[in-house]
Amino acid sequence: MQYNPVELILKKRNGHVLSEPEISFFITNYLSGSIPEYQMSALLMCFFFQGALPSEISALTKCYIESGEQISFADELKVADKHSTGGVGDKISLMLAPIAAALGLTVPMISGRGLGHTGGTLDKLEAIPGFNTQYSIEDIERLVLKHGYAMVGQSEHLVPADKRIYALRDVTGTVESPALITASIMSKKIAEGAKYLVIDLKIGSGAFMPNIRRAKELAEHLIETGNSFGQKVSVVFSNMNSPLGAAVGNALETIEAIEYLKGNYFPDTYEITTTLITQMLKMAGFAKDRQEAEKMINSVVDDGSALAKFAEIIEAQDGDPRVIEDYSLFDTAKYQIPIIAKTSGYIHEIDARAIGYALVQIKAGRMQTGDKLDYSSGAILNPKISDKIEAGEQIGTVHANDEAKGREVAELIRDAYKVASVEKEQEPMIYEIME
Amino acid sequence: MQYNPVELILKKRNGHVLSEPEISFFITNYLSGSIPEYQMSALLMCFFFQGALPSEISALTKCYIESGEQISFADELKVADKHSTGGVGDKISLMLAPIAAALGLTVPMISGRGLGHTGGTLDKLEAIPGFNTQYSIEDIERLVLKHGYAMVGQSEHLVPADKRIYALRDVTGTVESPALITASIMSKKIAEGAKYLVIDLKIGSGAFMPNIRRAKELAEHLIETGNSFGQKVSVVFSNMNSPLGAAVGNALETIEAIEYLKGNYFPDTYEITTTLITQMLKMAGFAKDRQEAEKMINSVVDDGSALAKFAEIIEAQDGDPRVIEDYSLFDTAKYQIPIIAKTSGYIHEIDARAIGYALVQIKAGRMQTGDKLDYSSGAILNPKISDKIEAGEQIGTVHANDEAKGREVAELIRDAYKVASVEKEQEPMIYEIME
Repeated sequence: MQYNPVELILKKRNGHVLSEPEISFFITNYLSGSIPEYQMSALLMCFFFQGALPSEISALTKCYIESGEQISFADELKVADKHSTGGVGDKISLMLAPIAAALGLTVPMISGRGLGHTGGTLDKLEAIPGFNTQYSIEDIERLVLKHGYAMVGQSEHLVPADKRIYALRDVTGTVESPALITASIMSKKIAEGAKYLVIDLKIGSGAFMPNIRRAKELAEHLIETGNSFGQKVSVVFSNMNSPLGAAVGNALETIEAIEYLKGNYFPDTYEITTTLITQMLKMAGFAKDRQEAEKMINSVVDDGSALAKFAEIIEAQDGDPRVIEDYSLFDTAKYQIPIIAKTSGYIHEIDARAIGYALVQIKAGRMQTGDKLDYSSGAILNPKISDKIEAGEQIGTVHANDEAKGREVAELIRDAYKVASVEKEQEPMIYEIME
Repeated sequence: MQYNPVELILKKRNGHVLSEPEISFFITNYLSGSIPEYQMSALLMCFFFQGALPSEISALTKCYIESGEQISFADELKVADKHSTGGVGDKISLMLAPIAAALGLTVPMISGRGLGHTGGTLDKLEAIPGFNTQYSIEDIERLVLKHGYAMVGQSEHLVPADKRIYALRDVTGTVESPALITASIMSKKIAEGAKYLVIDLKIGSGAFMPNIRRAKELAEHLIETGNSFGQKVSVVFSNMNSPLGAAVGNALETIEAIEYLKGNYFPDTYEITTTLITQMLKMAGFAKDRQEAEKMINSVVDDGSALAKFAEIIEAQDGDPRVIEDYSLFDTAKYQIPIIAKTSGYIHEIDARAIGYALVQIKAGRMQTGDKLDYSSGAILNPKISDKIEAGEQIGTVHANDEAKGREVAELIRDAYKVASVEKEQEPMIYEIME
């Protein structure tokens, strides 16, 4: 079927609904080069302003999936995965994947890189000397079947449409569209063969979602789209007002994740990791409720089998598994600069986004795709919202290879803590679960 | 000043106001090639959805104007012009310009071509054998100073930014933005040196404006923008529910315009032409009211001086002025096909847009820029809204060189007349004047 691209843009712009053949025509011709970038960016902006119906999002997702190869696992395998919308100090995948695999789930975890104030799982893994994240689809399948999971980057043959359109969205101000975000997330998670998907939808100062209304809309889109492809989806709304755990920065976060697998939890990372895996186990029929799931999860941490699973995948993906016992094998920053509180009081707010951006200055994160990272740099941040701190108290440490910049970052981080003399109650880590 | 183009897109997308330096940065860098088409189309779509403040529209207009050369006339000249937002059978410029020039106004009329259902002044003029509309800015100035007016196309050196951005808007669904329409219209009319501008803002079945609210918004933008550059602007809201006069099609309309200048008026074209010129005369201080203006206008038609002015410019622009006395010098269509009414009753509605599009089939208009026209083809349409017609009565004639297509067009035009047995009152031609 042949359509006029301008008429399709006008149809969407004027708030009408595009049909599956119309969406397919537009995407296919964009990918083949017959529809130019400027028409695609105009259509993407219309999606931003007009939103989309479930039928349109499913059609988009289908086009993305069909633009490349797909992985499909045997029916008897309980293929489950997690996606996070991104936060500060979010190293949950590094604990979740080996625990889930140790519990018998099959986890083809395809992750991304950090950008702006948020980190990325691939960057954290690559802080492990030798760790490789770039595999062909066949090799990803082989790794997952052999080890029960893999932690890899998106192969260029998996949903290439998403890769190209994401790059265009990034430079045309069309990233924050729930419809487009949904197609982007779900196409990858469906093409990789996941049957059960839990999504960690983060809300707060360190998250992308500006408010609950937009988060709800996104969650509905994610669930409806997954379901339309026969995938079970559960969305966990989690608190991203404080950086998670204590470490922010690639090597520091990976070390924290290893400590976690050794049983040294922080309350916030424990709550989120356990909630997410519980949803995976429930969807896969491995556990009937939280109590049962939590017991299973704790047992594979306590008996060391989750840590062994992590060591196994590090070795399988060409990393040095000795890092698990010897953290000195990670890059280490030259300077450790204390972060000193200026004012006494209870912490009411933490500007997690500001902390993420501050750390970009010492290359713990990147401003633009392709920027090189310094794996060793980052920060350890101890107090959380509601904690009481004293002026002059050390509330954290910046790890940096540039002392002057490190000091600047320490000041910026200090200023991200808003303190008041009145007490502040603790916030919940999990707001709600939608399924 | 250096800005990040994506941040400017996001600023506009999120409903904030762009400053003059920000707009100037974006347009200048787009024209120089450092901002790509896909970022410009994203920004244009944001203007469509978010609208713009007067300060933003003035900044855009300024950028457009400064992208090219400008004409400026001596202070003592009363430089006036008219712009029409486009309609079906709209040959008003062909009568208005010579009448205004005969009355001593200076009229540097830069016109456009037809597209879609609407015709264009340049196409109508080019139906005159030899008539040239392409001149350099210097030649336009020379023609205007010598003859009191000129009827030409947009030189490539006049507001080139508008030309490039309009071409992009055309293929990205961003034409119908009051803010962008304003910058496009006003930049040309300011750069050509007009001090008094009357705008014929058409509303109805044959017009672009979907409704009064959008028309009002556009009118306010046009007046505010003109005023911000020291130009007096008056907007006439006119009725575009019926094709104007009787002729639709290039040669046919030019012949109707010549007849008008010989004193053979239709009531609707008389009302619109007289109202528009009255506004020009009032703004220029040549007439104090409608009565005085109308007397002046009628006198230069009655004494033949307006027709002589038309002959003068035809000759000056390399056309054959003998067409004024000998209409056989125009291209003539092979077939004259009657349009026969099917139902008796009073005409309640005429789908002028459908008539415009039907005539595109026999090349009286074009679907795409660059499509070749058949100057001879078109239609003569007699009845107006409120007229009573009888089944079997000839209500018009299609002029075509392809008999089969001509018959199809005749049926399409017949179906554009909505008839009912109850009487229908006449509609006003002029709804309102804003100044």
